Amino acid sequence: METLRQIGDALLKADSIAVLSHVRPDGDAIGSAVALGQVLSQLGKQVTVLNEDGVPAALEFLPGVSMVKRPSDLESPLVVDVTLILDTASEQRAGDEVWATFADRGVLINLDHHVSNPGYGDLNFIAAKAPATGEIVFDLIKEMDWPLDEISRYNIWAGISTDTGSFRYPSTTAHTFEVGAELVRGGVDVGEISQDLYESYPLRRIFVLRELLKELLISCDGKVASWKLKRAVINEHGVQPSDTEGLIDVIRSVDSVVIAVFFEEMEDGKIRVSARSKTPNADVGKICAEFGGGGHQLAAGTRMAGPIDEAAVRFLSSVEKVING
Amino acid sequence: METLRQIGDALLKADSIAVLSHVRPDGDAIGSAVALGQVLSQLGKQVTVLNEDGVPAALEFLPGVSMVKRPSDLESPLVVDVTLILDTASEQRAGDEVWATFADRGVLINLDHHVSNPGYGDLNFIAAKAPATGEIVFDLIKEMDWPLDEISRYNIWAGISTDTGSFRYPSTTAHTFEVGAELVRGGVDVGEISQDLYESYPLRRIFVLRELLKELLISCDGKVASWKLKRAVINEHGVQPSDTEGLIDVIRSVDSVVIAVFFEEMEDGKIRVSARSKTPNADVGKICAEFGGGGHQLAAGTRMAGPIDEAAVRFLSSVEKVING
Repeated sequence: METLRQIGDALLKADSIAVLSHVRPDGDAIGSAVALGQVLSQLGKQVTVLNEDGVPAALEFLPGVSMVKRPSDLESPLVVDVTLILDTASEQRAGDEVWATFADRGVLINLDHHVSNPGYGDLNFIAAKAPATGEIVFDLIKEMDWPLDEISRYNIWAGISTDTGSFRYPSTTAHTFEVGAELVRGGVDVGEISQDLYESYPLRRIFVLRELLKELLISCDGKVASWKLKRAVINEHGVQPSDTEGLIDVIRSVDSVVIAVFFEEMEDGKIRVSARSKTPNADVGKICAEFGGGGHQLAAGTRMAGPIDEAAVRFLSSVEKVING
Repeated sequence: METLRQIGDALLKADSIAVLSHVRPDGDAIGSAVALGQVLSQLGKQVTVLNEDGVPAALEFLPGVSMVKRPSDLESPLVVDVTLILDTASEQRAGDEVWATFADRGVLINLDHHVSNPGYGDLNFIAAKAPATGEIVFDLIKEMDWPLDEISRYNIWAGISTDTGSFRYPSTTAHTFEVGAELVRGGVDVGEISQDLYESYPLRRIFVLRELLKELLISCDGKVASWKLKRAVINEHGVQPSDTEGLIDVIRSVDSVVIAVFFEEMEDGKIRVSARSKTPNADVGKICAEFGGGGHQLAAGTRMAGPIDEAAVRFLSSVEKVING
């Protein structure tokens, strides 16, 4: 593994740089890519920030995100000295279309905080203890003494804030708070960006929540909570995929709940199942694997055949075995 | 107004100190009182931490909170050299029973961050720009170079974290993050305390949320969202005051919403009103003042005569004037 200075020096040597992050990008994927894309542009580099799925609507408020291109936006195959891939645990997670745009990707620099990242770059910096790639990007900029402007500050903030659940997850360190202090001193308006990140849900999210609560099922003495989002509700309210993001936390945050499950009826009639556990002993990854899905001990998912009520009964019967056994 | 050092010196001169905070205490009321109660005890003072309503169930996990007494726990009238009142905008907000326990309250020291605090103490330190009284308590302890132990760290954290919505509200400053960094360096386990504060709700909170969503009212083109908690629901689910803490954020976080209002039917038939605004232009402090209440531009409250449906109509008509005017 390289040092941050070696990563920075390699970037300085390049004239043209592509900056990538993962498909279905979150705040840290977009934030870290735009922050570093901006800094490298200011240093006079020819920068192309590229994401398979582009900027999600919920992050369009961030300054500078118009620099993020989708593969279809490019007119000719990319030839660059360096490709910098951020927050992306495996090469494929950047997306097939992204990789297909390259005629020559040059030196691959892999900067990430995912512990599962095998270090697939030519140069690698994997800081598994960093709560967000945004924090590593900040450290790199400081290490190299590069200028940090408003666009970079807001995007680093977005990465750190979203990947730490607003400075709450166990991965948050004293250094994370120090970075927060420095970004605020530099001019980040905490109230404004927090409002944009966390208080700007469409009204239909509340209607979805209301419908979900009607279908709330508590079982196993309160240890299991689950709810169902039916097609009729999705159609009635014009629910977008991002509307339900994080709603499972509402039932996960009940003290007695060990496993929380979200069943969603897809357009094709299949049932999307998302499961969360509070303890490795109640391994939802294993339960989802029974149904052909995957994931980790604490967060996993699968797709099942409908109808939704029958899928829920079958899945929850496996959940109950784990809880009671 | 005094300096922090003058406040600290006055506390040092006292042998016996009563530490008070407001009725229906939140994380900052309990956290700042226990943190400073603990520090003063360690300095050899005879400390009585007193709260009209005691420690809410949701905060019982905090270390050291067993030091908080209710007026009924005291066997004889209190005689102290100093009474330190924390996070309490007006003298009455400490509660009638609390004041009735005193035979002699000595010198009254008033330490607070509420801008509406008129400085009713003999000595006063009101830092309206501090996001939490917990942050002022931290600054006082640092200014005086008093030792900070685990109990104080966790309680200061609880105060700051809850009063800033986990480092998100506009009141959060670079200094707030610096305090966060120092508390984490000192040993606060961010993941653990965040789970205790934000992911350990009783199941009845979810049932309350379900009932509130049934009573959700959206008005003024989506700019105003309000809901009502009726006595029947409170009784049916055995709702505790702390169960509803923060639920208003569910409706406040809708993008179109400017003002969110929570109406709650109290045991005595009075209606407790909590209002939140996203902008100083829509000043909920002013609206609440119309009805005899108080607070800030962005967060305020009042009590009204029932019945709840009529109180809501009257209050919302003032809200609509502000929104449309």
